[in-house]
Formats: sequence, C-alpha cells, structure tokens
Amino acid sequence: MHVANPPHLQVLRLLRDEGPVSRAELGDRLELTRPRLLAEVERLVAAGLISEAGMAASRGGRRSTLVELQPRLRFAAVDLGASSIDIEVTNGRLEPVAAYREPADIRSGPKAILQRVNELLAKARTDGAYDKLDAVGIGVPGPVSFRDGVPVSPPIMPGWDRYPVREVLAREHGCPAVVDNDVNIMAIGERHGGVAHSVDDFLFVKIGTGIGCGIHLAGHVYRGVDGCAGDIGHIQVDSNGPVCSCGNTGCLEALFSGSAVARDALAAARSGESPALAERLAAYEAAHEAQEGDDPPAVHITAKDVADGAAEGDVTCIKLIREGGRRVGGVLATLVSFSNPSMIVIGGGLAQLGHVLLAEIRSVVYRRSLPLATGNLPVVLSELGGRAGVTGAAVLASDTVFEQAS
Amino acid sequence: MHVANPPHLQVLRLLRDEGPVSRAELGDRLELTRPRLLAEVERLVAAGLISEAGMAASRGGRRSTLVELQPRLRFAAVDLGASSIDIEVTNGRLEPVAAYREPADIRSGPKAILQRVNELLAKARTDGAYDKLDAVGIGVPGPVSFRDGVPVSPPIMPGWDRYPVREVLAREHGCPAVVDNDVNIMAIGERHGGVAHSVDDFLFVKIGTGIGCGIHLAGHVYRGVDGCAGDIGHIQVDSNGPVCSCGNTGCLEALFSGSAVARDALAAARSGESPALAERLAAYEAAHEAQEGDDPPAVHITAKDVADGAAEGDVTCIKLIREGGRRVGGVLATLVSFSNPSMIVIGGGLAQLGHVLLAEIRSVVYRRSLPLATGNLPVVLSELGGRAGVTGAAVLASDTVFEQAS
Repeated sequence: MHVANPPHLQVLRLLRDEGPVSRAELGDRLELTRPRLLAEVERLVAAGLISEAGMAASRGGRRSTLVELQPRLRFAAVDLGASSIDIEVTNGRLEPVAAYREPADIRSGPKAILQRVNELLAKARTDGAYDKLDAVGIGVPGPVSFRDGVPVSPPIMPGWDRYPVREVLAREHGCPAVVDNDVNIMAIGERHGGVAHSVDDFLFVKIGTGIGCGIHLAGHVYRGVDGCAGDIGHIQVDSNGPVCSCGNTGCLEALFSGSAVARDALAAARSGESPALAERLAAYEAAHEAQEGDDPPAVHITAKDVADGAAEGDVTCIKLIREGGRRVGGVLATLVSFSNPSMIVIGGGLAQLGHVLLAEIRSVVYRRSLPLATGNLPVVLSELGGRAGVTGAAVLASDTVFEQAS
Repeated sequence: MHVANPPHLQVLRLLRDEGPVSRAELGDRLELTRPRLLAEVERLVAAGLISEAGMAASRGGRRSTLVELQPRLRFAAVDLGASSIDIEVTNGRLEPVAAYREPADIRSGPKAILQRVNELLAKARTDGAYDKLDAVGIGVPGPVSFRDGVPVSPPIMPGWDRYPVREVLAREHGCPAVVDNDVNIMAIGERHGGVAHSVDDFLFVKIGTGIGCGIHLAGHVYRGVDGCAGDIGHIQVDSNGPVCSCGNTGCLEALFSGSAVARDALAAARSGESPALAERLAAYEAAHEAQEGDDPPAVHITAKDVADGAAEGDVTCIKLIREGGRRVGGVLATLVSFSNPSMIVIGGGLAQLGHVLLAEIRSVVYRRSLPLATGNLPVVLSELGGRAGVTGAAVLASDTVFEQAS
C-alpha cells in the first residue's frame, strides 16, 4: 500500500531537488489545494526553512511568488572511510560550499576522529562556509543502529562499538545529527544525484578496502534488524580459499578487495608472471632506494597498477580482474535471484578496474540469475565515485531536518 | 519514516485479528478521538463491513457497544501448488467455514485449473458456506506481477504466462481478487497465525517440489521489481552438480528438493547403501506386484521414507538430510548476511525432515553468517504447515477489501 509523504516533506524535497518554484507550480505538482499549500508555505517560512525569492515569470494570469529553501540552510556531510575523512558543507540544495578530504585511520578511535571532524567543520566556519549548521549527516565503515545513532560491533573500528556518535555531533553543533553505514550513504547519494536517480529498487555494491552492499528497496534503504544488512564481504565463496581477517576461510573480501588485489598483484610482480606489474614494482623500489631513510619500502602495488596493466594488455592483470569479477558476480547472481532489483551499481575504489570488471560481473549475473530477473537489469558503474558518500550524508541530514518540520 | 495506516484499516484489521471489541476499547487502542471513531464506525457499518454485537461488560461507566466484523463476510482463499488445489472459505475473522483439498496438475493450464477452483467454490456455496464472496485471494507456484494480477513467465506453469487470473476470478465471483506467489502467501499466513506472528523482518523458506523464499521486510512482503524476488531455488551451489530442470547445473533445487531427495533415496535403496530405504522399496514393489494391471510401478520412495528411515537411525537417510541441510544452510547464510532478518521459518513438504534438517541448517547459518546478524536469529519450522498458504491467501483477500473501504 502506498502512503503519500506529508505535504511539508513533499514541498521541502521538491525545493531541495529542483530549486526555486512558484507557488502556483508547487500547488500543481503536489496536488494540494491552494489554501492548504498557502498555509504550509507560511508555516515553513515561519520555521526558517523556506523563503520567498521574487516573482515567477507570468503564466498568463497574475504572477506567482517564487519560493525556495532558505539560502542560509547548511548541512554538514561526513564520510568516514577506513583510512580517510571526507567532508562537505552544503547549502539547502545540497550544493557544496566547502569540501575537505584527508587521510585518517579509523582505528584511532571515535574521540580522535570526531575531534578532527569538528576541527575541519570549525575551519569551514572560519572560511565563511556557514554561520550555523542545520544538521550533520555522517557515514561510518561498519554496522550502525540507525535508530540509536551508534555503530554496533563494527569489525574494523576498535573503540567505536556503541559510541554515541549522533549525540556527540548533535551536542557539538547544536543541531540534529544522523549516523548511517558508509555503503548506505553511498547508495542514497547515487540515488539522489547519480546513475540510480529516482530508481526505487537497486543494489549499490562497494568494492574497496572491504566489500559491502547498500540495499535500496521500494524507495527506502533497507538496514536489517541489527543494522548490518548488506554486509556481503564475508559471504563464503570458496571453502578452500584464503583465511579472511574475520577468521573464516574463503570470504568474498579475502578473495577480491583492495588488499586482496594488492596481495595478488604483488605476488604476480615478484614472480615475474606479470611483466607490467614487475616493471611497476621495480620502479617503486628504485624510487624508494633513491630516498633517504631506513624505513622498509612500502608496498606500492595497488589496484590502480592492475587497472593500468590491464589497459596495456597485460594478461595477468586482466586475469586478476576477471577472476575478481567472477567472484563478485557469483555472489551478485545469488542476490539478484533473491531480491530482484532493477539496477546494480558498482562503486568503491576497485570500480576503477572499470569495464573489464563490469563485463565479467555482468556475464556471471546474466548467466546465473533467473532470466526474468535479469531481462532488464543494468549493471553499471557509480557516477558519483568518491563523492557518493558525502552526497548521501547530505541527503540524510536534510531529510532529518525536513521530517522534523511537521 | 513510519506512516500509520489509515483509521479504517486499523479498525478492520483489529476486528479481524482479535474479534469483537467495544467502541470504548477501539478508541483507546487506536488513539482516535471519540467523534472520529464514531464517524469511522458508522461509515464501516454503512459499507456493510462491520456491525454491532450487543453491549460490552461495564467498565464502570456507561456500557459500550461491541462492534465486530459483519458476520456475513466471506473470503475465498486458494493455494495452487504444482500438484494440488487447496481452498478455504473463511469468515471475516479468517476462520475456515469450508475447506477442500485435491490433487491437480498445474500444467493442465489456467482454464482447467480455474474452472475446478470455481467448481469447488460453487460446491462450498451449495454446502451453505456463503451466499456471496467478498474477495478471493489466490497463490500460484511461480512469479506474479502483483500489480497486474497475472503470473509472469512461470517456469512450471505452461499456459499461465500473463493469464488474467485476477480478472477472471473477480468477474466470476463479482468481488475483488488478488493474486500472489505461493511462497509469499505462506509467509503472510505464517505471520498472521503462525510462528512469525507479528515479526516484521523474516524469511519464509519453502522446501517442497521446488525451493522458494518469501521475503518479509519492514512489515511488508517484498516482491521485487518483476515479482520474482525470493526465487532462490536456482542459485548455483555446486558448479559440478547435477543438471537442473532450468538447464543450469548445480542449482540448489537440483541438489535438494522433493524430487532430488526422492532421486537420491531411490539410488540409495537400489544400491542397498540404505537398508531402511531398500526395505521400503521392496515393500512398495511387492505391493505393486500384488495389484493387477500393466502400469509400470510408480516410484514411491519419497522424503517421508527418508524422514522415517532417519528416525530409525539409518545412517544414509541421516546423511541425505544433513547434506541437504548443509546446501540450504549455505545459501541461507548468504541471505542472512545480505538481509539481516530477525527470523527464518522453514516450511514446505521437506520440513517433515524435521529437526535433523533444522539442526544442520542452523549449524551452517550460525557458523557462516556475520555474528551480529545471527546473535539473536531463530531458525524454526513453520507452525501452520500445509495451511500456511490458504491462511495467507485469506489475509490478502481481506486486506484487499479493507483497503478499498476508504
């Protein structure tokens, strides 16, 4: 059963997603009676969420007043990765007015990381990006109790278990805050401004340091009863596979993820099986030797090298990508048969492996899933790339404010 | 965001699920103001959906009038299996007032099968079960476009593709009709009156002739964009496994389902590997020879024999069940990591394999899924058994009528 959103939420989302609109058009678009609409607009103006923006072009009769989101509205969008902090401060339309990105180790714990987030936001204020924030949205790389606004047993985030992230941010900034899993916010971002625009049922598969899946069903993110829905990185795909960081063997993530690809690529470089990778490894080692210092050489071979090697036609690089695609495709075939989505979006760092990866994933999914489920199922790369997370965090922040405006 | 159901739906569902209630209690339970409630009740009485049923016991003040669903309300609930027709006619509270079950081959096609359904319903009318039906709910063993009320590319239902089942039944009985997949109605039934009572997020796994999964998320059945969500029988679990009826190799259903178990049990009986099954096969063959006629002996060894053999301690029977449980468990472990439900219900014919099966499924799911997702995840047998389907079809039928009463 479809239940329409309340009018104030419809008005605010429309102004966020489409910009200034005349009162007359608002009435037409939302199928509200004129008195109802006028009352709603007046209430939202009084609440400081929308304002008048001059007159619209005439539609033949009296000219109608344009309304828009209050220009002073500001949302902070934070995307915490395993090894990075991404922040955007946006206006009401979710356009960035300030952006910061820097490396950070999530294992430093919540106090250090959130302090750095607050420092960056303070800098944004000093830089003139905002006077006061209206909401903060934040994504973290682990399971989250969305209701409670806390991470729950996050495997790669020591010290964060049930840390009151939402409460701490809300108190610091004197505004609502909302916490979600990093892959969920990427899915929300891609739906707002990317390839999944307006798609109600899709899977967003992030292949990066780990592997996770944002599940968007019937127009909403599905988070599961414990907030860990979509945690597909530890699905067993080969009972004889390598041991995973989780202790099990043959998890998807142990076979194909940023670190797994780096491991396999380094082996192929050292054995000389891949000339392209061997050449890159030698160049990294030469560059390291030319530097001073006694640090052991960092392993520089990454997925990027594999992507470049594949582009040059290196057979081993292509094989590495295709084998990874086959593993991911096998799991996705199962999830497609189960959830019958209308699109699959591939994002995260390993999306740079590009069309070779995509072609292999598609091939397995189309061959193994039900024909009915794949008859019209695009499998595509994320459009927003590294910005998917902050975009989704901004959407969540704005929705939190809009929903509370009733 | 939670949006409450409209008042009329709340009133009708409460009366359906709990029986006669006083006006005063209705007002308390539904948090409706007294004038709003009185208006709603009056409207539903006028619509012929509820009626007054005398006075309630005094609560201290004036005695309040009891209201109940109109006693003449009748729903037809139909569960079409691959080889059976199950029908119940129920009253408004979904209590059966007539029930019929008979073998039928779904491959006979929609005209023959629906004609037989209509004959059985005509018999129910002759038997005095109803004067007029208020709605018909029907489940079919294949994917369904819920919106259009038609089966869509159902693999085991030749002739049914896009056949207007809803329209045909609605026209025949002059009332609304609703069509869904058979596993979905089993999930709905189990949630209404079985072990998943009031559980919002659970998977109902039917292991019978085929294998399917009803997906109940956030309080609603999730059907997927093409109506084939939950079609998990053709997930590949062994790339070297037997060829499946779908043409692929190693599908879950080709390894463990009613026919797969019968196939493996017959082999174990013939080879003598299983004394319990060999004994049963000999008994069937002797019984057949004692009969007259030239028909070749039907293969009588079924999952029931395997269940009985296991109960007697036959090692091969136990092994067959445990291997099947391991296969199903492996797929469910993946689906649990993906969807993080709060319960798994096992139903269908092979649920008679009972606790040996359940123990093996649990063991694999608990070992392989994320600890966070399995910390509090019951894996249990269906309580309603063969009645889950008709119960769910009656729920769907009643909801259709109730929703239209706005």
